[in-house]
Amino acid sequence: MQKTQVAIVGASGYSGQELVRLLLGHPHVAISCFTSRQYAGKPVTDIFPKFRGLVDAAFVEPKIADIVASGAQAAFLALPHGVAAEYAVPLLEQGIKVLDLSADFRLKSAAVYKDFYEHDHPAPALLARAVYGLPELHRDAIKKADLIACAGCYPTSIILGVWPVLKQAKNIIVSSMSGVSGAGRKVSEEYIFPECNESARAYGIPKHRHLSEIEEQLGQTISFTPHLIPINRGIVSTIYIDAAVPDPLPVYREFYQNERFVRVTDALPDTKNVAMTNFCDISARFDKRTKRLVVVTAIDNLTKGAAGQAVQCLNLAFGYDETEGLL
Amino acid sequence: MQKTQVAIVGASGYSGQELVRLLLGHPHVAISCFTSRQYAGKPVTDIFPKFRGLVDAAFVEPKIADIVASGAQAAFLALPHGVAAEYAVPLLEQGIKVLDLSADFRLKSAAVYKDFYEHDHPAPALLARAVYGLPELHRDAIKKADLIACAGCYPTSIILGVWPVLKQAKNIIVSSMSGVSGAGRKVSEEYIFPECNESARAYGIPKHRHLSEIEEQLGQTISFTPHLIPINRGIVSTIYIDAAVPDPLPVYREFYQNERFVRVTDALPDTKNVAMTNFCDISARFDKRTKRLVVVTAIDNLTKGAAGQAVQCLNLAFGYDETEGLL
Amino acid sequence: MQKTQVAIVGASGYSGQELVRLLLGHPHVAISCFTSRQYAGKPVTDIFPKFRGLVDAAFVEPKIADIVASGAQAAFLALPHGVAAEYAVPLLEQGIKVLDLSADFRLKSAAVYKDFYEHDHPAPALLARAVYGLPELHRDAIKKADLIACAGCYPTSIILGVWPVLKQAKNIIVSSMSGVSGAGRKVSEEYIFPECNESARAYGIPKHRHLSEIEEQLGQTISFTPHLIPINRGIVSTIYIDAAVPDPLPVYREFYQNERFVRVTDALPDTKNVAMTNFCDISARFDKRTKRLVVVTAIDNLTKGAAGQAVQCLNLAFGYDETEGLL
Amino acid sequence: MQKTQVAIVGASGYSGQELVRLLLGHPHVAISCFTSRQYAGKPVTDIFPKFRGLVDAAFVEPKIADIVASGAQAAFLALPHGVAAEYAVPLLEQGIKVLDLSADFRLKSAAVYKDFYEHDHPAPALLARAVYGLPELHRDAIKKADLIACAGCYPTSIILGVWPVLKQAKNIIVSSMSGVSGAGRKVSEEYIFPECNESARAYGIPKHRHLSEIEEQLGQTISFTPHLIPINRGIVSTIYIDAAVPDPLPVYREFYQNERFVRVTDALPDTKNVAMTNFCDISARFDKRTKRLVVVTAIDNLTKGAAGQAVQCLNLAFGYDETEGLL
Repeated sequence: MQKTQVAIVGASGYSGQELVRLLLGHPHVAISCFTSRQYAGKPVTDIFPKFRGLVDAAFVEPKIADIVASGAQAAFLALPHGVAAEYAVPLLEQGIKVLDLSADFRLKSAAVYKDFYEHDHPAPALLARAVYGLPELHRDAIKKADLIACAGCYPTSIILGVWPVLKQAKNIIVSSMSGVSGAGRKVSEEYIFPECNESARAYGIPKHRHLSEIEEQLGQTISFTPHLIPINRGIVSTIYIDAAVPDPLPVYREFYQNERFVRVTDALPDTKNVAMTNFCDISARFDKRTKRLVVVTAIDNLTKGAAGQAVQCLNLAFGYDETEGLL
Repeated sequence: MQKTQVAIVGASGYSGQELVRLLLGHPHVAISCFTSRQYAGKPVTDIFPKFRGLVDAAFVEPKIADIVASGAQAAFLALPHGVAAEYAVPLLEQGIKVLDLSADFRLKSAAVYKDFYEHDHPAPALLARAVYGLPELHRDAIKKADLIACAGCYPTSIILGVWPVLKQAKNIIVSSMSGVSGAGRKVSEEYIFPECNESARAYGIPKHRHLSEIEEQLGQTISFTPHLIPINRGIVSTIYIDAAVPDPLPVYREFYQNERFVRVTDALPDTKNVAMTNFCDISARFDKRTKRLVVVTAIDNLTKGAAGQAVQCLNLAFGYDETEGLL
Repeated sequence: MQKTQVAIVGASGYSGQELVRLLLGHPHVAISCFTSRQYAGKPVTDIFPKFRGLVDAAFVEPKIADIVASGAQAAFLALPHGVAAEYAVPLLEQGIKVLDLSADFRLKSAAVYKDFYEHDHPAPALLARAVYGLPELHRDAIKKADLIACAGCYPTSIILGVWPVLKQAKNIIVSSMSGVSGAGRKVSEEYIFPECNESARAYGIPKHRHLSEIEEQLGQTISFTPHLIPINRGIVSTIYIDAAVPDPLPVYREFYQNERFVRVTDALPDTKNVAMTNFCDISARFDKRTKRLVVVTAIDNLTKGAAGQAVQCLNLAFGYDETEGLL
Repeated sequence: MQKTQVAIVGASGYSGQELVRLLLGHPHVAISCFTSRQYAGKPVTDIFPKFRGLVDAAFVEPKIADIVASGAQAAFLALPHGVAAEYAVPLLEQGIKVLDLSADFRLKSAAVYKDFYEHDHPAPALLARAVYGLPELHRDAIKKADLIACAGCYPTSIILGVWPVLKQAKNIIVSSMSGVSGAGRKVSEEYIFPECNESARAYGIPKHRHLSEIEEQLGQTISFTPHLIPINRGIVSTIYIDAAVPDPLPVYREFYQNERFVRVTDALPDTKNVAMTNFCDISARFDKRTKRLVVVTAIDNLTKGAAGQAVQCLNLAFGYDETEGLL
């Protein structure tokens, strides 16, 4: 069977690296080109030595014509917000399906985008066309979409935790912890090893950008505090909900019984059990004392929170089994 | 000036180790004996090699008579709950002031103790006599006390964060992260390095034992989720409060203006800034969107959360400057 | 095609866990049973929650009859030395090929075994029959073997580094660093997180057990110092050799040109590039000042240093492509 | 007693931070000014939040006149090599003693400096005047010096390990591991958390710059490989020596019996036992099989390897007890 050709645009960051790792194991997909403005001309394995012996290609400039010429039928955009939209428009015009890992097309409202991202939306006309790339919520729409806005890492961990009880949910408060790869491959003093190791800290409160998509999906205003902790990969979200669900595990189990990538567990989730997988582990406890439901979820921010989710969406959009390349 | 002689009972754990570190730098205190049932007869530096060249003593059996004979005027109890009370009673009878780092005397109610610790209180008659050892709340009582129940690590980080706004506070929800030394020097599979490194996980919900003392001090029922993260030392508590405090930093600054060990900061706290210190760093943000106050605190669980606080209490109880040995 | 059935005997440690991970992705192999004396009767996923949704089996007692009854054609022994031999004998009698990850059959001499392991060899009659399981050295013998003594982790990293220049090599001195999973899933105070994190230390000198197999393979007496460092997985070995090889990289490249799992690199190896892979990365520098060759290698101690190597050997022994399940 | 006023020139890196930490606890020294070109005008605690409540000063531009005007009697130079010399010359002319933490004055030969540092020495006339700041070797000279070139971190860990057996020592080979703070507060992709965590790697071979001073002090050409490991602080050096010292511990104990900061230990050193201290822990084993002596040392690269050593030198140069501010 002919493999589907996909381009990875902005392949030199951690999401790009994870895409490469996953697609190397995908039976029906081949990478047609790896673009990187910064590293164009250099072998991919100069930047990602872990792929030596597995990848024999060089980064190319991210030119639309070249991406088209590579035979790409789909393109993953692993680019900063604002920049991703610049590529999405011409790629779509060329008939290439776009799986955007940035935040550019996750919201329906250009005004909310501007409020949270502090610049005008670069392609508001496409917002209606985009589908929010969280398969557990929007599977059917993703199958038909050509512009998929893959859900963010924190949002994935939070929305999946709330979704089964959304109708009863009030006063949602979320405290999340993320590994440092969540900041991308960003070279900044706050992310050098001695500043992160033996460090734990909250940041970005009270109005983290990811709130916009979480609130749009949930239809509620919530409180959210992200924290940075010294692990490479993984997010844990602890979610407090005013919801009278005295025995939550059966409710969650039934709700997700057909979802291959959501595991409802008796034990509380641990990032180490989901690292380098596309699973979202979920457990829950009802606190009789306060009448609050406490839901805890764990994902790998680079897999189910980024590249894995994007591959899952690609599988849906191209009619493959949803788990190809992911189990 | 004659130094005050103090015994460290149960000196072989991490709180004991931190007590040794702090007391070695205390100008007015000398350690009269180090007890350890497990290591009696062995040099202290066999168990704590970091003190080689600084400590020249061996652990002794924790016998009351020997502690008395060592000249101890005070005793730190770094023992498990349930066991601590067994030592407190006879030591007090001998006129030795007791600074208990366990949970045995933190509550006023033996019934609540039993509810949370799942065994009868071993010395209920002493509960009324004990003072809760959190100097920022109970300084005057600590000065006069002979039985000081040093506040727990999570409770310290939470109570100090709520105290300035307690009157307005409703619906308090706390998410905390702790380093692994918080579990003590406990040899158990869940704490070996490969199980903790690259791991983040919630535990002990919804009814962690520390809730009992937090709720007694605050006079409210709260939600609390502790998490274990791969750092050695440090706690961050993120506290959500329904409280209309639109400009919280000045409120907190004024409230703690005379407290030497509470630092109210513009920036969000980071464990690395309080590690190996007795400081509690606090910052706060008011979320206009949800009308919730978000308070973030950081302490070193072994210092302000245990040994440092105990030394601070000792300083008060013996009339020393509160900061001796701690700055 | 019928899958080869294999048993994992002693499946509850880290090598066992890595075997499960690799075999789940192997197209031609199925796990017939997972044995664990400690956890018999419990679901595998209780001990390895990361495999929830992927493995639906329980641990069984390690009884030979049951292993045979499971249909096993081969058995991986992930057991302590001394114990492994007890299983190897009856399994071989039943016609089951044995891939032993312990040290029991790595040496040809029972006397050397006793010298290094401090007990009599439990099955000296089998020593001559066993093949040392390092495919890059003994590929042809492994193909025909029914008792394969998979090479140790340190030995793999060292032997592969010396082999290309062995004829000229004199005065070999090796300094290695290993992640904590190298100690197995051992619950001991020295391995709890606070004792390993922010710690680096040498151990086991001057006569580490692995020296025996290294020296047997190399035919030389060497100096070797292992160190424990706070990473989960990975070994770096830095090897000093008196050898006049002024331009070593081309020598190494040519030597290993047909080896799929040895990557000779310009850059110095890094454990993070080989983690969770079966690769051994090697680089080398000739020091004109001292006339010494310095070779640096990196492997994942659980993959190329244990489970991956065992799967590589299995592939050879059963006629599969050597890389199945490993790339 | 009047305190000695000292300037910290280049105070915003990790060595500067450690100097501040140590000097805050020094009974006879006060910091007259903190200079930083990058942060001039900003409060010191903006850059080092851990000192909030302890330091109330702002960084100033590193102007000689201002340093003089601050009343400084000595200046610590925590600057890059090449730059340090620019300050040393005018400060010495002003009668200010210089404690240089850079490499600029550690060698006697400008030619060797150029060979290793790849630029001309900026002040060769001062080389003869400078004293190598390793008190255990050059105590008397340091007492009289006004230009002290504090020994480097790796050199300290190596020279102290070899010194007691130097006369018999041949074929010295050293493998060292260092925490990431050893690279300074350097913002570069190779030092961001995800690139260092779960990573171990050799670097800088075969001709690391520190070799020059090690070889000058030891009078021998040696092999040296540094490695980067994921800890914040600490160096372990494992030193192989052809030396017939069958029972080395008594030899080392006697040699260092009067040294307060060298601890000869039965157990192999561990960085965690020297972290945040000025100790150098040393142990040794004689390998009868190879006739080699293996010496292992551990220091904190920022303390005994930089700031602590500088304070120790200052104490000597100003007639204080050598341990002031360090125990």
